[in-house]
Amino acid sequence: SMLDICVLPGDGIGPEVTDEAVRVLDWFVAKRGVQLRMTRHLFGAASWAAQGTTMPEATWDAIMRADALLFGAVGSLDQTHIPPEERRKGALLRMRKALDVFANVRPVRAWAPLAESSPFKARTVAGADLVFVRELTAGVYFGTPRGIETQADGTRRGVNTHTYTEAEIARAARFAFELARTRRNHVTSVDKANVMEAGRLWRDVVTEVHRADFADVTLEHMLADNCALQLGRTPTRFDVIVTDNLFGDLLSDCAGAINGSLGMLPSAALSAPGPDGRRRALYEPIHGSAPDIAGKGIANPLGAILSAALLLRWTAGRPEEADRLENAVEAALAAGARTADIALPGEAVLGTRAMADAVLAALDAT
Amino acid sequence: SMLDICVLPGDGIGPEVTDEAVRVLDWFVAKRGVQLRMTRHLFGAASWAAQGTTMPEATWDAIMRADALLFGAVGSLDQTHIPPEERRKGALLRMRKALDVFANVRPVRAWAPLAESSPFKARTVAGADLVFVRELTAGVYFGTPRGIETQADGTRRGVNTHTYTEAEIARAARFAFELARTRRNHVTSVDKANVMEAGRLWRDVVTEVHRADFADVTLEHMLADNCALQLGRTPTRFDVIVTDNLFGDLLSDCAGAINGSLGMLPSAALSAPGPDGRRRALYEPIHGSAPDIAGKGIANPLGAILSAALLLRWTAGRPEEADRLENAVEAALAAGARTADIALPGEAVLGTRAMADAVLAALDAT
Ligand SMILES: CC(C)[C@H](C(=O)O)[C@@H](O)C(=O)O
Ligand SMILES: CC(C)[C@H](C(=O)O)[C@@H](O)C(=O)O
Repeated sequence: SMLDICVLPGDGIGPEVTDEAVRVLDWFVAKRGVQLRMTRHLFGAASWAAQGTTMPEATWDAIMRADALLFGAVGSLDQTHIPPEERRKGALLRMRKALDVFANVRPVRAWAPLAESSPFKARTVAGADLVFVRELTAGVYFGTPRGIETQADGTRRGVNTHTYTEAEIARAARFAFELARTRRNHVTSVDKANVMEAGRLWRDVVTEVHRADFADVTLEHMLADNCALQLGRTPTRFDVIVTDNLFGDLLSDCAGAINGSLGMLPSAALSAPGPDGRRRALYEPIHGSAPDIAGKGIANPLGAILSAALLLRWTAGRPEEADRLENAVEAALAAGARTADIALPGEAVLGTRAMADAVLAALDAT
Repeated sequence: SMLDICVLPGDGIGPEVTDEAVRVLDWFVAKRGVQLRMTRHLFGAASWAAQGTTMPEATWDAIMRADALLFGAVGSLDQTHIPPEERRKGALLRMRKALDVFANVRPVRAWAPLAESSPFKARTVAGADLVFVRELTAGVYFGTPRGIETQADGTRRGVNTHTYTEAEIARAARFAFELARTRRNHVTSVDKANVMEAGRLWRDVVTEVHRADFADVTLEHMLADNCALQLGRTPTRFDVIVTDNLFGDLLSDCAGAINGSLGMLPSAALSAPGPDGRRRALYEPIHGSAPDIAGKGIANPLGAILSAALLLRWTAGRPEEADRLENAVEAALAAGARTADIALPGEAVLGTRAMADAVLAALDAT
């Protein structure tokens, strides 16, 4: 059946890279019978200019109605007088919470053709292929009480609350174990159980879920600081990493260094399956709005294109087409296609559109 | 005047590496007129076996009285039935709080002779020389309310509180700016001000301290997730990084990957100067107790020895001797001295004692 995809190009480099992801998805609609109807909606700086709000009501309705969102970026400079970081946070956190997309899937792999441009030695990262399941709708991002208060002596104090319920931990754990069964059957659960009670509960609940229903999957626990180290030393030792909202934010960027650029990284944020068995989903390249290079046609579209691959896998239910797209990206890279962020000094550099053309050419060749 | 150094070898590899750090400090006492009186005290598993407590009262008195502590490690397997991680945390957090050592100095540099064994390409890390100032006595490590509670429906909920006062932030910032003035005059302040109010206060207070008293130092603000990425991409861009307790824990391990082993990393935890102008200080290699290799004489003593160098700099007030020791470590490495953790496959490997001998030989040659 036809899937309704709400496309939110947003601002900064969002529109440029989203255009290419849509063009790639159009290929799958035309050539592989994937049934998507993609509709663009105003959002962010563009909608501020046109309508005086960064989130028009019609857009919010479309977000809530759609089978999935294809999100570009938000947070560029504009006339809203709201700092870009605030707007990015505001939009993302509101959507994450409203759609209850608790499972943030962030795959990271060492692309073999990029071995030269990686900051790491080839022997460190060759073959690395891991995926974060970052809990996305709880923890310190949403906990209360929070705020900046004035103390009795007139000085300020900042407070945030980090909190997890058993249910919030259990559903993230369950998601990670199920994902591991489709991969190499190994889960690393990451916390600071030695210092934080919420981390001790995290560890206990993950262990209980494992014992009850996933004894066939290998589970290890790791402290978050040690995980940061191991991601740099031996990223190849990981398969699925499940962790909380804040640790997931830092550690996935840590792992992002593997290819030297966030430009390669896609993400999917998924809810629990609804009555129709389908998950709400928000697909988004990790890189953000990058206002410094916006509008120049030089941004790397692969994060957005690989997010489209995740859409094929998780929303369209066509894993073989997702594989096809990921293989086409690898083929384009192997043929030497490079945007500026992943090129070595002296290497020929493609613009945003030309990089997507290289992926489409590789798709045509399959 | 004679300084009173309380030596706490602890357990695991603590005693082995601490012995070598003491031997190196003895060299400075004998040859360079550094005035230290080092006294060993029972602590951890060893004191449990002898006295039925991991922290004998006499040891605690010595800790509170000493000019500085030279700490090995704690958290090995023993008969206490307290999990090792619990004991390590218990001992460390109690000492940090009681001594009010709020400034955790964690230098990280790419040792040129280790370029081959680093997980990173030489072009990424060559010349990297940065230092973390991690706030060590506040934040989520100590915030209340905390704990695991049972909710109305009978399920559990874990809670921790992340909190910083203006005064706690200001003294960490001040320390970082002063340290930067002795280095390359650049401070990166790291937070998640886009998501956490406590991070927004962090950013505001660091900015205020900078404006008021350190306008000669360059200050930049960076989000913690971006910092995790940049430590992997371009560690050479950093000089002093000031951040909170939890981010400092993760990010310094992130940077620890630069040499491929935590075994190279020293630390100092320092209080505000007392009436005599001297800071309380806790010196400690970052590696921990490593029970799997304890007692075998193969642990890397350089983290402990470089912690002794920090003692020469910060407690003994002899920066030129600290430099001498760090140069001797570099000379030993350049001459090919390697413990197992930093050796390439096929390279000759030294034990703990022999590695310290190589450093002492290099000292004798100065
Ligand atoms: C923009 C910000 C709120 C967001 C986060 O911290 O979750 C971003 O860093 C991310 O990782 O998606
Ligand atoms: C053992 C643990 C409590 C400690 C911390 O988290 O501070 C350790 O990881 C460190 O970095 O010194």
